[in-house]
Formats: sequence, C-alpha cells, structure tokens
Amino acid sequence: MRNALISAVVLSSGVVLASIDAHADEGQWQPYQMPSIAEKLSERGIEIPAKQLADLTQYPMNAVVGLGYCTASFVSPQGLVVTNHHCAYRAIQYNSKKEHNYIADGFLAKSKDAEPSAGPNERLYITEAVTDVSKAVTDNLSQDPLVRYEEIQSNRKSLIKECESDKNYRCSVRSFHNGLEYYLIKQLIIRDVRLVYAPPKSVGSFGGDVDNYEYPRHSGDFTFLRAYVGKDGQPAAFAEDNIPFTPKSYLKINADGVNAGDGVFVAGYPGSTSRYRLTSELQFASDWLYPTLASRYQLRIDTIKAMGNADGEVAIKYAGTLASMANRMKKYNGLLDGFRATDITGIKQNREDNFLKWLTADKTYQSYQAQFDQLESLLDKKRTGMQSRHYFENAQSSALLAAANKLYRLSKEKAKPDSEREEGYQERDMKMFKARLKRIDSSFDISVDKTLWLQDLNAYMGQDNRVNAFDAMLNFDDKTVTLSDKLDGLYSLTSLTDQDKRLAWMQADAKTFETSADPFIRLAVALYDSNMAQEKEKKTLLGELSQARPGYMKAIIAYNKANGWPVYPDANGTLRITYGMVDGYQSRDALYKQPFTRLEGIAAKHTGVEPFNAPKKVLDAIAAQRYGTHKVDSVIKDPSSWICRLFSCLDKPEAFNSVPVNFLSSVDTTGGNSGSPVFNGKGELVGLNFDSTYEAITKDWFFNPTITRAVHVDFRYILWMMDEVDHADNLIAELELVRN
Amino acid sequence: MRNALISAVVLSSGVVLASIDAHADEGQWQPYQMPSIAEKLSERGIEIPAKQLADLTQYPMNAVVGLGYCTASFVSPQGLVVTNHHCAYRAIQYNSKKEHNYIADGFLAKSKDAEPSAGPNERLYITEAVTDVSKAVTDNLSQDPLVRYEEIQSNRKSLIKECESDKNYRCSVRSFHNGLEYYLIKQLIIRDVRLVYAPPKSVGSFGGDVDNYEYPRHSGDFTFLRAYVGKDGQPAAFAEDNIPFTPKSYLKINADGVNAGDGVFVAGYPGSTSRYRLTSELQFASDWLYPTLASRYQLRIDTIKAMGNADGEVAIKYAGTLASMANRMKKYNGLLDGFRATDITGIKQNREDNFLKWLTADKTYQSYQAQFDQLESLLDKKRTGMQSRHYFENAQSSALLAAANKLYRLSKEKAKPDSEREEGYQERDMKMFKARLKRIDSSFDISVDKTLWLQDLNAYMGQDNRVNAFDAMLNFDDKTVTLSDKLDGLYSLTSLTDQDKRLAWMQADAKTFETSADPFIRLAVALYDSNMAQEKEKKTLLGELSQARPGYMKAIIAYNKANGWPVYPDANGTLRITYGMVDGYQSRDALYKQPFTRLEGIAAKHTGVEPFNAPKKVLDAIAAQRYGTHKVDSVIKDPSSWICRLFSCLDKPEAFNSVPVNFLSSVDTTGGNSGSPVFNGKGELVGLNFDSTYEAITKDWFFNPTITRAVHVDFRYILWMMDEVDHADNLIAELELVRN
Repeated sequence: MRNALISAVVLSSGVVLASIDAHADEGQWQPYQMPSIAEKLSERGIEIPAKQLADLTQYPMNAVVGLGYCTASFVSPQGLVVTNHHCAYRAIQYNSKKEHNYIADGFLAKSKDAEPSAGPNERLYITEAVTDVSKAVTDNLSQDPLVRYEEIQSNRKSLIKECESDKNYRCSVRSFHNGLEYYLIKQLIIRDVRLVYAPPKSVGSFGGDVDNYEYPRHSGDFTFLRAYVGKDGQPAAFAEDNIPFTPKSYLKINADGVNAGDGVFVAGYPGSTSRYRLTSELQFASDWLYPTLASRYQLRIDTIKAMGNADGEVAIKYAGTLASMANRMKKYNGLLDGFRATDITGIKQNREDNFLKWLTADKTYQSYQAQFDQLESLLDKKRTGMQSRHYFENAQSSALLAAANKLYRLSKEKAKPDSEREEGYQERDMKMFKARLKRIDSSFDISVDKTLWLQDLNAYMGQDNRVNAFDAMLNFDDKTVTLSDKLDGLYSLTSLTDQDKRLAWMQADAKTFETSADPFIRLAVALYDSNMAQEKEKKTLLGELSQARPGYMKAIIAYNKANGWPVYPDANGTLRITYGMVDGYQSRDALYKQPFTRLEGIAAKHTGVEPFNAPKKVLDAIAAQRYGTHKVDSVIKDPSSWICRLFSCLDKPEAFNSVPVNFLSSVDTTGGNSGSPVFNGKGELVGLNFDSTYEAITKDWFFNPTITRAVHVDFRYILWMMDEVDHADNLIAELELVRN
Repeated sequence: MRNALISAVVLSSGVVLASIDAHADEGQWQPYQMPSIAEKLSERGIEIPAKQLADLTQYPMNAVVGLGYCTASFVSPQGLVVTNHHCAYRAIQYNSKKEHNYIADGFLAKSKDAEPSAGPNERLYITEAVTDVSKAVTDNLSQDPLVRYEEIQSNRKSLIKECESDKNYRCSVRSFHNGLEYYLIKQLIIRDVRLVYAPPKSVGSFGGDVDNYEYPRHSGDFTFLRAYVGKDGQPAAFAEDNIPFTPKSYLKINADGVNAGDGVFVAGYPGSTSRYRLTSELQFASDWLYPTLASRYQLRIDTIKAMGNADGEVAIKYAGTLASMANRMKKYNGLLDGFRATDITGIKQNREDNFLKWLTADKTYQSYQAQFDQLESLLDKKRTGMQSRHYFENAQSSALLAAANKLYRLSKEKAKPDSEREEGYQERDMKMFKARLKRIDSSFDISVDKTLWLQDLNAYMGQDNRVNAFDAMLNFDDKTVTLSDKLDGLYSLTSLTDQDKRLAWMQADAKTFETSADPFIRLAVALYDSNMAQEKEKKTLLGELSQARPGYMKAIIAYNKANGWPVYPDANGTLRITYGMVDGYQSRDALYKQPFTRLEGIAAKHTGVEPFNAPKKVLDAIAAQRYGTHKVDSVIKDPSSWICRLFSCLDKPEAFNSVPVNFLSSVDTTGGNSGSPVFNGKGELVGLNFDSTYEAITKDWFFNPTITRAVHVDFRYILWMMDEVDHADNLIAELELVRN
C-alpha cells in the first residue's frame, strides 16, 4: 500500500527524495476537524480516538495551555507546567540576581514554597471554548468596503466584550480561511505563574544562535513552571498564600519515548502561515518583500554591531535586540535560500493553473473565475500600496517617533466610547500599551536610534513618493543644516526619553499634544493626517478583500476536497493539532540527517566557549555513561527514512546505546508552537517542540514533506537531566510516568 | 559470517558505529604481498587473481604510473594517461597564456598534433622492478652509529648508481618497516609528456579550498595527458616528431561503474604514514609537534594575508603559496580536531600495553623488551633534540638564507667524489637543485620574507637554547639598531635576489663563499659548523635508530601476525595497493554521509562565485537532464552503510536518477595517492582517487575504519563530461569502454 505511493522527487537543490505523497502530514488542524482525518491518524499509528482529540474538555487537549507567544502543558495534578526554556526565559531572567544567576546556573525549587513568581506579566491561557461566530461577524455587511471593514471590527469587538464579562477570561475573534469563517476563542487566564525548574542556559539553549534552525541539535530547551490560583480555586494575581491550580487533566509522560517511524502529534498555538495565498503574493514576497526587508535588516544589524564594538554600553543594551534580530535574519536568509533551492513559485503556479482549469470546468464554481480575477487586481493594488508606503513607514522608525505616534493616536481614540476605539487602544489594551512604552528603555540609545533612523530617512529621501507634511516638518530642502544635525536637535529637545514623562502622555488629551513643543510630539501631530489617510486606504482594501478572499477560499476548498487534499485553515494563533511521524531527512545531496541525537553529541560539540559550553555536571554524567533508566539500547528503528522506505528494514533494531537528546518529526508547525507537547500515538507526552530545520523555513508558504521537519526535545533527555544530573526527585514524584 | 563480526563502536565524538572489525580494509600493501591477503580480497568481491596483482609486468599494474608527486594510469594503447586535474595543474598553467587561459576555460586537443608539451620538467615514471636489497644495504654494518648511518647511505647510493647506468631509468632504495627491509625500485622515465584534455578549473577543482577535505563533494578532478617517446620507441626529451608511447597495457574502463558495497582497490604511490610509531611518538606529535607547527603556520598565513590585503602585488605573488598553506593548515587542524574527537593515543597505548604483555610472555621475543626500552630512550633523545633545534632551524627560514645555506653546502659537497656526496647534492640532483633555486622568484617578496623571518627570529631570541655563531653574526645584543633595521641592511646588500647571480653561486668553490661580502652568504658560512654539528647529531641518532627500530618492527610484526592482523609497511612513496569497498559513513552524531553525489548537487552548490562557479555548459546539461548513456536509474544500493549492515537491505534498489559525480570508499590512502586509479573487482577502471575526508586526516597515525573514507571522481562523471559537455569524441574512441 505504502510502496504504491512512493514517487521520486528531484529538487533543484540536488536532493533526490522518495516521498510518500505530496501532501503527507501537512496540516495545522482545528481540533474539531480531527474526526475528518481519523483514517490518516490511524494510518500513522495514532490510536487515541480522533473524537477525543476534538474535545477541548477532555484529555489530552484540556491539559494544553498557551503562554501568549508559546505553548505549554500541564504535567501534574498540582498545576505543574512544562514548556521551552526559551519560552520561560523572561521568567528566569526576572528571578536572576547578582547573587543567584539562574540564567547561567539554572534553578530548581526543591519544594513549593521555594517557587518564586515568574513575574507580574506572565500568564497561562487555557482554551475552554471555540465557537463558530461566522454568522454574527459577517451577516448583513455593507457593500461599501470601508464601512464593511468597520462593521466586521465592530461585530468582533462586541462579541469579545460580551465574552470577557467574566474577568477571568480572555477572548478573541479570529478569522479563518481569510475571512470565510470566524471563531470566538474563550481562554481562562491564570495570573499567578511561578518558576519551578530551569536548566542552565548552557543546557537550555546549548548551541544558541549558532545552532538556531540547525540540526543535528542537542538542546535541553525545557523549563517547568507552576500555575497558582486563589484559595477559592479562582484565578488571582500573585499572592503568597495562593494555592497550586488543579488542572482538569495533566499529561502522562511515556518514559520509553518514541521510535523512528512512530506516529506523533503536536498540539499548540501556531502563529501565522500563508499557505492559501495566491502565487502572485508568493512571488511578490520572494522577489521584493523579503529581499527588501532582509537588506534593511542586515544593514541595521551591521550598524548596531559596529556601534556596539565601539561602545561597550551600547553592546550590552542591544545584546537582546541583536540576538532576536539575528534570529529573524536567519529566518529571512532561510526563506531566500529556500526559494532559491526549490522553485516554490513554479510549483504553486502549476497548482494554481490546474485549479483555474478545474474552475472553468466545474459548473458550481465557474462564476468564481471572475472573483479570482478581481482578487488578483486587488492584490495588485495591495502590492502597489505596500511599495509606495514602505519608505514613508520606515521613515518613522525612531522608537521615540513611534511612541509619539501611538500616544497622540491614543488621545484621539480616548475621545470615543471604548467599544468604538481602534483595537489596541481600548481599555483592555492599556496594560500592554503601558508595558510597551516602558520597555523602550531596555534597548534604547540615542546614537543608535538616530543612526538607524537616519538610514531610513535617507532611503525615504531617495524616493519620488514623498509626504509633504513630513518633508516640511523635517525641512529636508534646507541644506544649510545637515539632516544629522537636525536630528540631533530633535533628540536634545525631546522629553520622551524620560520614562515618567513618556508615560504621562497616556493621560493627555489631543489638544495638549497639539500645543506641545516636544519635537517628536510635534512630528507625530504633523504626520497624523497622512498616517490616518494611509490607514484608511489599507482598511478600504481590507474591506474589499473581505469580500473577495472568502469567495476564492470557498472555491479552493471545494477544489482541494475534490482532489482528496487536506483542507485546514492557515495558522492564526489559535489551538491546532498537527500529526506526522518521527523521521530523518535528506538535507543535501549525499547528506542524510538521522532522527535522533545522542548525549555523546553534546560532549562532541562542547568547546567550553558559549554557546557550546555544556556544564561539567552534564559532561561528567555523559563521560561516566550514567544513563540511568533512560538508556536506549537498540530499540530505535528508522523504517521511515529515505533508505528504509525503499529497503525492507522495518522492525530491525539499530544500536543506539545512549539517551536520546533531540528528535525530528514530520509534523507541521510554525512560530508559536514552541513548547508544544509532542504526543505518541496513545496521547502520552514524549517531547517538547522547540524549532524546525533551516531547509523548512519556507514551509509558512509551502509545505514540502520531504524536507520539512520539526525539532523536539526528547522527554527522555528531560527525565535524564532531572534524574541523573539535577536530582529533581520532588518533581519526578509529581509526574505520572508510564512505560510501553 | 559478516554479521558475526559486527560490533558497536562508540567514539568520543558521539558517533555510534557498527564496524565490521577494527582492522577492516586497513593496509597499503606492497604488490608482492597480494597473494597473502587473497582471501580478504575475495571476501570483498575482488575477483582479479591476487597473483596477477602482484606482477608488475602484467595488467593492471603495468598500466599504473607515477608523476613523482601523484599517481596516474594508461588508458589507451596510444599512451593516453589520466590523472587528477590538481596533479596536472602545473602542465595546464604552463600552457596557459593571455590569449588562451586553459586554467579558466579548460583545454581539449581534438587531434594529436594539437597536444602541447606539458612542460620540460614533467615526467612519467613506470615502476618496472622492485627488488629486495635488504642484505646489500644492511649486511656487516658497523656498530658505531654514525659510521653505520654513513654505510647505509653509501650502500644505497652504489645500488642506485648501478641501476641508473641506463639513463632511461630512475632508481631509488627505500627503507621498509623502519629499516627492517630495503627495496630497490627501478622506474622507466618518460620525458616527453603532453597535455591532452583538461576541464576548466571550475570543474576540475569545483569547491576549491573551501571543499578541500570535505564531503559531500562535486569535483571533476581529472585531466588527460599523453606519453611520447622517440621514433625508436625509447624515452626522449620533447621533440616535434616524437611518437606516442605504446604502454605494455592500458586500463579498461567500466562505464557502468560501481555500486555501494562493491569491493574496489586502488594502486598508487602513497607518500608517508606513521602507523608503526610508538605511542610516545604519537603523543609528542599531538601534544607538542602539531600544535607548535600549526600555531606558527597560522601566524604566517595571517601575516601574508594581511600584507596581501595591503599590497595587491604581494597578494598575486603569494596566491599559490597561500593556497597550499591553507591546504596544509586544514590538515593540521584536521589532525588536532581528530585527536580531540577520538582518543587515538589511548587506543594506541592500549594496543602497546597488550603488545608488551605478549612480549613478556613470548619465548622468542622476550629479549625484545630491552630493545623496546632502548628505542623509547632513543625516541626521548630524539624529542629533546627536535625541541632544542626547532627555533634555531626556524630562525634560518628566510628563503635567501635557506638558498645560501644550500649553495655553500653544495660547494663543500662538490669537493668530494660524486658517490660520496650527501643525497641531494649529487650530479643526478643538480637539475632539481637548479629548478628550486629558480622557483624562489615565483613567490618571493622582500617585505614578506623579512616579516616572516623576523617573527621566527623573535621566537628564537625568546629561547635559552641559542647558537653563539648566529647571535654574534646578527649581533642580537646590540640594541642600538633594531633587528628590523638590521635585516633591512641584509636585504639591501645581498645579490641573491637576482636569479642569475643566485644560480651562478652553484659553480663557486667554498673559498669564494668564505670571502664573499654578501650578507646572506656570510651568514650561511658562519652557521655552517653549527648546522653540520646538528646534522651529525641527527645522523648519529638515525644510526642508533637503524639498529633499534628494525628490532622493534620484527617483534610487532610477529605480534600482529599472531593476532591475524594485517602486516604492511608504512607508506614511503613506493607503489602500493589498497582495497576496500564503496561505503558512506557516520560523520557526526545524527549525520550520515552517503557514498555517491549527483550532478544536481553541482547545481545546488553553484553560486556563480569561485570556487562554486560551475560553467554554464555544465549547468545547462544538468538543467536539461542530459545524462546521455551515463544515467544511473536505480541500481545503487547501499548494503554496507551503517543502517544496511544491520537491516536486510541487500540487493534492494534505491532511486538515483542522475550521473554520479564523486564517491566514497573505505580504501587506505594518503598524499601521493592523488590521481590513483580506482578499480572494480575485475580490475577495470571506475574512478580516480583525489582526496579523503576531514574526519580521516589522523589516518596517517591510526586507521579508524568507521570514519576513514577516500573520495574518488566517478569515471561515469568523466565520461559524461567528455560525451555530453565537451564532446571529446576523439578521446572516447581511444578508450576501451566495457559494461557489466
């Protein structure tokens, strides 16, 4: 059966691959969809009933929680939560002091009263209900695009308001299938989160930025937190006498883990994908958008680095910024390399051509051809708009100008009733608004801000498409003073660099802004009309697209269903399930990456220099081959590898003789899936998702099953760290460990 | 049978490997030894009778030729020879002019009269006889070490003189097993060598220095030459009317190539290995010698690069030097990385301990314990001598001082009868002596020479162990003038920078040197006695070792034989045969390198920038999948890979769908094996050896079968280039192509 589906795929990268089929394992499924793919799950060896996975009130889905930007899961009846080290980094940093550096040394609370708060802003979100509200959002909408846009926002806001009447819940209305459907997501908020156990950074992000997106990988990217609630069992802010939260259920951990070829599934909150975008959109992204963003980004990185080399204080201030910029830059490079390696545009164009052929032939959908053409013309308008606004938007990149823009806008929005305000400016947003304004100081330096802004201003001035109000304010035509000197003047006269003064502007009314002498405030006031005009243009286009996209989606969904291909919505930060199998992959011509890494690989990579500075306690345990009960002798088989798909090596053992550290699977993940539980076929926890491979970075646009692999921490490595290295016996006692 | 031998080997690099046995495929065998390993050859599927391989007058060994520094082979009845592009580089460079750049564009002679001379110094050497002369060299030697040393040299020289009475032959007497045996090698010299067909450098060294020692590899490292002789069939210098040489035989080429798991063997001239050295010698090399050499080397590379950046002429002059230095530096780094990755010293110590235990127990060899102890004490003396001489020897590193030293020595040697002169200073050596003196100009710049010399002088001056004559001449104690200024004085006054004047010194007698005012000549004269004293010290030690080493070798050979382990002499530049099989390897934890690369891998690596600038004609043929008759569909199996050794995937096909470019085998090679023919089991040519993998660089000390792989050009790629890209139909017609 399987063999019949094998086909050789030759990529332009020179890699010849045998793939099961082009859509294998693709899909970030809404839980309710699971019964519709029950057969595929079963083929992969996933035994847990699909119906059970669809039910958010049942095990295991009711044990999966969001962190807002990552995913986590409950692993004990006492509210113990496990997620990635990099997801809990802020919590570890918050508790690190000069006298105890938990980032460097790790942290283990030997009892609950030793568990410190993870910080006042840490939250756990438990999705309790997902309700189809498509009708409530989209019924009876106006035909006028701008009005239509505003009506959709207004409908969403009133649904959220109603849902959030209970303050223990956070609600959101998300668009699915590009506006074809809307769902209301209701999440319980846990507000008292505490730090329980974190390995040292040299384990938690062993390999650091160098290994980011790379494989073979040896990262112990895990941290344990705990959810606390008030004595009444209700969510509450941190208080000494709060008690551990009792989750509806918690995940069993299978200490025998998985083997190559085993089916696995992952639940979590993937952020965003663009799989249903048109070929023209992909082409624009690969030909203009990413190259443009990447070259500006690289310039900014180079600039900050150079200024940091010259000034140690700048280096320290921007270290975090640079690290996340390096991460993003690697993503840009991965996208551009991926587009070069595989002609994704060609593949998508080919699929789109076939779709259009089908459209013409299908009686029900013939009329959609016109909608498709209209969508293409709207997208063309969108591209023109993006290109024409690009340099003007960048020209406002100074952190102070951006803050001034937001503050003045807030004063305008505050004049309206709360429900009519723009998203981001409502009362529910004010906590985050304030936090962002505060956070500026942590990575701000006038000379860096000015240098980067000047680069953007120069790029803007090189364009024909200019905004008069802006040009007049900065008096670009006056060459008697250099632009650099003009900017120095702005920075010397502003008080926005003072955090208290900056925050005070949150209370000011519009008039106060309009009469202010602060040069950045004056600039924001001057630019307001232009920015609002551009926003209106964007909203109008979104209103038009809100009519055209759902029509296209309806047709493409019908087409995909007619072909038996998976139909799942693009990722949008809501709870999803993805399945696949433990599997290696052909990375380059003659280079095969195997699905499991070993403890000994840590010792081999160890140089003693960060980020390859494994702690002595780890190296000693490896050198002594102190594997404990977590050793894997020879049970790992690789029946699914390129070689074994074609040879009959099923069920034959391979020597392993170590503890698995990280492993690969073919599940379909993206940013936001960090920390996601990886389950075996029985729904038992076997790992934590934390990254994906470099070759797979283009998967947000196109899922290529032959090279798309997610990277997971093997839970056997976590248990080994707890057992043999850190002796976290108190925590192990809390876990429910099972064996095969 | 095979399975019974499988054992899991865990390397400290974190790689777990299944190896056939620890000595699998090890050995650079003398041809006469082949019958003694007939069974092993047969196990590997090598069908050609071992007796036939032992016979240098028969196919295929009489078609194997030496280039002096590389290996080549005859492939047509008209003297056509194939070797590596990098081995023929000098010949291609010699023929490249402004109007036709054969390095950049490649060269193809469409008929014999278009074949230019490869240059006046190119030679082909055909080994016709190898005779055991151990008795003649070592009988009745004196017990005085220095006398003993001189007697050995004298015996060797008279054997050579007698052998070279026919001027068409070059002869040498080489020590085998560290002086236990001596063989006289008699080689016919072909003096008219012509250039026939070379691909562009962008094929011949695709990947360049970046890919050096790396795999996956995609190099078309081949070039065709032709041997010419006088009309009488006898070797002759280049003359227009010379005729193609008719070799005694020429290699058949199997156009179906080999598959993974197939047995292969390689014949060639490996230069030097140290497999039988004592553990203490390895330890000295890994702890002191290589780190010391490497750090000086890196400093020199950095210096030349920095000076080249500042001065374009220096950059051009030293481009070749830097390239070969980068190559050597990578070798040093590979050695040091290899020693870190695998505890070779520990493995060797363990073996040596077992050997010594056996020695104590064995009646015949008990007495050798004392010899072993004596050898250790001599080696200790050797190490002390090397360390104490090291900085003084480096302090003479200026190319001009080195030349002056050699020239003054020549004047001293010339006073003796030719047969009594030191090797290197006999009449037979004068052509090479002169060529070396000339070659200085091609990569010499006073400022670079001085800067590097100054670094060495400063290092020397930091030592306690100094040579008075040297210190007095350079007047180190006089601090009124900086050393740098002193050196400037030397360079400004010497005439050795003038090639004619430098060469003229070859005719001068000692007295002329001793009365010269040239500062480098004066320095050479002043240092002569110290250098000669050090040479005497070395020769005395060599004389002592010439007694102690053969004793040790006798015992270790007996021990190895008793264990059924291979006994072959260390490489010494003489003709050898090594066998193995086509096989991938486990490069790092979770990273497996497969045995064949594909055409598509070239396109994937192509960036357009050297060294990844594949020619358009090649890329076009790949894009069009114009594989011709050289396409491999699905015949490649990998029964010997780590996975297939353990799984039953023998004889199952794997999709390939391309032309193989390079492949890996487990044969045992080293420098000098470049260009060596790679044979299938029937003795048909299937590839050219050209490199080995980075992980295997330590193999000169210790052969680790799990990671030691040689890299070969697949002859199917050569034929594809000839057929589909360069249309070298005239040459294809000359070849004898066979199919399975």
